[in-house]
Amino acid sequence: MANRQIVLKQKPSGKLAPEHFALREEPVPTPGPGEVLVRTLLLSLDAANRAWMHGRTYTDPVESGDVMHGFTLARVEASNDPGFKPGDVVEAMNGWQDYAVHKPGALAKVTPVKPLSHAMSVLGVTGKTAYFGMLEIGRPKPGETVLISAAAGAVGSIAAQIARMQGARVVGLAGSDAKCQWLLRECGLDAAINYKTAALPKLLRQHCPKGIDVYFDNVGGDIFEAALFQMNERGRIVCCGAVSQYDTATPTAGPRGVPGLIVVKRLKLQGFIVMDYYNKRAEAERRLAEWVGEGRLKVAEDIVEGLEKAPEALCGLLAGENLGKRMVRVVPEA
Amino acid sequence: MANRQIVLKQKPSGKLAPEHFALREEPVPTPGPGEVLVRTLLLSLDAANRAWMHGRTYTDPVESGDVMHGFTLARVEASNDPGFKPGDVVEAMNGWQDYAVHKPGALAKVTPVKPLSHAMSVLGVTGKTAYFGMLEIGRPKPGETVLISAAAGAVGSIAAQIARMQGARVVGLAGSDAKCQWLLRECGLDAAINYKTAALPKLLRQHCPKGIDVYFDNVGGDIFEAALFQMNERGRIVCCGAVSQYDTATPTAGPRGVPGLIVVKRLKLQGFIVMDYYNKRAEAERRLAEWVGEGRLKVAEDIVEGLEKAPEALCGLLAGENLGKRMVRVVPEA
Repeated sequence: MANRQIVLKQKPSGKLAPEHFALREEPVPTPGPGEVLVRTLLLSLDAANRAWMHGRTYTDPVESGDVMHGFTLARVEASNDPGFKPGDVVEAMNGWQDYAVHKPGALAKVTPVKPLSHAMSVLGVTGKTAYFGMLEIGRPKPGETVLISAAAGAVGSIAAQIARMQGARVVGLAGSDAKCQWLLRECGLDAAINYKTAALPKLLRQHCPKGIDVYFDNVGGDIFEAALFQMNERGRIVCCGAVSQYDTATPTAGPRGVPGLIVVKRLKLQGFIVMDYYNKRAEAERRLAEWVGEGRLKVAEDIVEGLEKAPEALCGLLAGENLGKRMVRVVPEA
Repeated sequence: MANRQIVLKQKPSGKLAPEHFALREEPVPTPGPGEVLVRTLLLSLDAANRAWMHGRTYTDPVESGDVMHGFTLARVEASNDPGFKPGDVVEAMNGWQDYAVHKPGALAKVTPVKPLSHAMSVLGVTGKTAYFGMLEIGRPKPGETVLISAAAGAVGSIAAQIARMQGARVVGLAGSDAKCQWLLRECGLDAAINYKTAALPKLLRQHCPKGIDVYFDNVGGDIFEAALFQMNERGRIVCCGAVSQYDTATPTAGPRGVPGLIVVKRLKLQGFIVMDYYNKRAEAERRLAEWVGEGRLKVAEDIVEGLEKAPEALCGLLAGENLGKRMVRVVPEA
């Protein structure tokens, strides 16, 4: 039995392409004393994966020759730790491979849900990122205007619907008319803007006539700057990602208006990761599950079949081709 | 009896110069029913005065032909309102003139202190800006590193000393060796950097070897960018001013690393004005007065004599020539 691994052959200097990766097979590792062997069921693909190739962030950087890093849901296959038994489903940073061995502290048990993919999308890091970003940092009030970039993406689509439930007027940005239609029809947004069709400042003024109170930013770059100039006094910018800057060797210049507009408009900008709100994790999962059960929160998943498809699927994600949460199903029955 | 007024003849397109202003004399105005006539005692000069010429901020913009706007301490000369009587000292937005008439709602009584200038510096907007910015947004913990730009300025010098009282390691940036010496000797800073002497990123790495936890920014521009790149995870940036960008028609490009570094370092950036913390105003004044009384907080004032000196004094402030709070004494005995 082999352990398929996808390795980053070489860090890209510009745009990431499938050719930067290579598939290899290694023996399945054997867990040592106190260790646990797990098998990857679902592999999360995230824009942040690309940012990890640029160096140290909140997690270890990906170096040339590494098995590509990635967040996974996995099943315990063999355990030398009393806390885990075969069949348990866990969260683990397995990376892009079938099997990995971990110390128990690197694993977190996951409540079995059906479909299991929900534990990676709406109930996983994705959903909780949207939840905490919107409710702890954005804090929209009824009647306020909330703008969300990459609104048809994994985090954006959930963040947008959560803002809607708070009674805000919600405007989404997406890169195609089809995504905009989906945001309006399925997610109930008040407006959706295809940012590729015209100059953004004008479109923002048109669709946010009262200005922007909360901007949930997944992209950075020119869209960040355009939103900044339309922010209302005491507005909040949720700094969740900067995908426009990840897949390039030449990031755009910084946004004009920083820090001047932050000062005169008394804005708050904040970056965060889900672990910053660890104490509220269970409550977040419970509420998200309730909203899904009640049909108030639509879950969009974009599942690619087979580990070997991961390189192409990540490049596609960076080009904006996904609708909702993109992941790779590594084991067919997962 | 005349009311001297200094008018902004024409908004500057580039650098502000004394020639942009003109002195004129008008009759002293007469208060109507319910109105109050006040006389300017002390006129505050602030970098923000220049920003007001660029357009709408948290206050009305200054237009060509306006009496220059400015914050003042004033004395009631005549009152048609039962809440005010001649001799009361009040805060008022008189602007650059001897006399003004106000509705009572535009005036706030000031507790008489000696010297009165303290009500404009450490106990006024300046001191409270430093206090709230550092304690409500920066929130330095003992042992953390706090960096302050324009540290020998009005707000910076107080903010630096407040951070020191919290047990933080405090590093100040200033534009001359003399100011740096003053910061070290009088204000007790741990390090002071003359940012004009060498490349800032290197100086920051040298003087902030553990990185920066709190950056209290008064200047924006290149210094903001250099600080951003040295911030630690979960750092806070107090966005208090952007003086490097005010006195020019060509602001620098925005800082690189926004919003990317905000995301990966989970930073918080926040702009504010003193009125955002109105409820805590009395407590702030009480504590600031205590610290001054105990000799723990040094107050630096840079008082220019005579209303006619205001244009030159503001231009000098924008060029960084002041040490501490610059103001104009309009009435000799004030």
